[in-house]
Amino acid sequence: MHEGFEIPRSHPRYESLVARERLVEMFEKGVVVPQGLIAHGRGECFDYLLGEKSHDFALEAGRATAAYLLLSRRPVISVNGNYAALAAGEIARLSEVLGGRAMVEVNIFYRTEERVRRIHEVLESAGVRGLLPPDCEKTRVPGLESPRGIVCAEGIASADFVLVAIEDGDRTEALVRWGKRVAAIDLNPFSRTAQKASVTIVDEAVRATRNIAGFVEELSGASEDRLRSIVEGYNNREILSRAFRAILDRLSSAAESGILT
Amino acid sequence: MHEGFEIPRSHPRYESLVARERLVEMFEKGVVVPQGLIAHGRGECFDYLLGEKSHDFALEAGRATAAYLLLSRRPVISVNGNYAALAAGEIARLSEVLGGRAMVEVNIFYRTEERVRRIHEVLESAGVRGLLPPDCEKTRVPGLESPRGIVCAEGIASADFVLVAIEDGDRTEALVRWGKRVAAIDLNPFSRTAQKASVTIVDEAVRATRNIAGFVEELSGASEDRLRSIVEGYNNREILSRAFRAILDRLSSAAESGILT
Repeated sequence: MHEGFEIPRSHPRYESLVARERLVEMFEKGVVVPQGLIAHGRGECFDYLLGEKSHDFALEAGRATAAYLLLSRRPVISVNGNYAALAAGEIARLSEVLGGRAMVEVNIFYRTEERVRRIHEVLESAGVRGLLPPDCEKTRVPGLESPRGIVCAEGIASADFVLVAIEDGDRTEALVRWGKRVAAIDLNPFSRTAQKASVTIVDEAVRATRNIAGFVEELSGASEDRLRSIVEGYNNREILSRAFRAILDRLSSAAESGILT
Repeated sequence: MHEGFEIPRSHPRYESLVARERLVEMFEKGVVVPQGLIAHGRGECFDYLLGEKSHDFALEAGRATAAYLLLSRRPVISVNGNYAALAAGEIARLSEVLGGRAMVEVNIFYRTEERVRRIHEVLESAGVRGLLPPDCEKTRVPGLESPRGIVCAEGIASADFVLVAIEDGDRTEALVRWGKRVAAIDLNPFSRTAQKASVTIVDEAVRATRNIAGFVEELSGASEDRLRSIVEGYNNREILSRAFRAILDRLSSAAESGILT
């Protein structure tokens, strides 16, 4: 929080302003890059279009993600600066309910080893389990030029399933081409990340991660058959259609009355 | 402009990229806060959805704003960091065509007296007329906790009409509750500022201010009756409907053809 400023709890958009504050604080600590601030603004725009809530299509995608996290042999949660800044606590909770079965890897577009270490520290102090060390053995994502393509050999490189959030489209696409199954948290259903992922959670990062953790808890006693039926019944094209439809419906009703209720 | 970078005039999004550069420059000078960069990112997203142009509904709202500026006994233009960074020249032009009849007050959400002085300097060097001094006698907006509620006694506190831009919803609402008539420049028709204002100009700050100045010039010889008929015929609910309709139409046609026109 900025020195001398405090967002009053009574502010109707308290959650959103606190998220913004958290991002700015992490920007000042070198965890978030300036490009991350602009990206966050774009996310806020889409969150407005969606009504700042978790829709049914986001919950269904979150449930499929939870099933994949429980079914996969080597699931990895990939964390960049914005995701760590916004949702470190929720990522910790998710790693906890997964009983440490997912690895968590810091993986960033604007990569410096210093920034990797800072993000790692944020996650470590939040109590994230299964965190890969910054000095993990490195390898490269095929088709992604360095340093954007650097990943941990034991982490993303060996993963069968990767959860990403607020991720660059180029990198998401490269992971899919590499044969990984990718679930993506992204408020913008038009983004290449949203379009290329196997499972797209069109929702805000904090809400989405909290929901996935809830579904993992709910499903952690489920049989493999039950989990398989969840992922087999999942259709991402249909989920994305519903996300676009939600935006159009909200705009239609806003266009009718002008004033939102 | 950042050292070493220059945006070519031929770039199709020249205006938008220049605005971003100006904002970053003003951020480095302490005029804009990091939260302002996020807010700008959100604005850019809505400007894309609107096609980066001044629509007829924005022009109509700009015309009503001009009529109010000419009719009001004590009109005030409220300027925050982002508005000064983006549109100081256009604010100067507007104050000029108003012949100094509007007061211009620096009024910011993340308030420090140092930042108020810096914004004041930006406006002063741009040649803004009617600028209230940073050491004006202060009072408070009822219902807004300090320092967000500090205003000049001679300025916003005594105003019957206030023009705000890129303003926080809570502050806009407090001004309306205080009995001020408020016109707001805001790219996001969902925002509480857009929803609570009496006149909402859904447009980018530079374009909107330029248009208002043009309408003031056009109307400055008009009779009071003519001005009254403009503001009496104005319906903000209908203007907001048309703004939502414009975004909806653009998304719908994009969904149909895949290509934006």
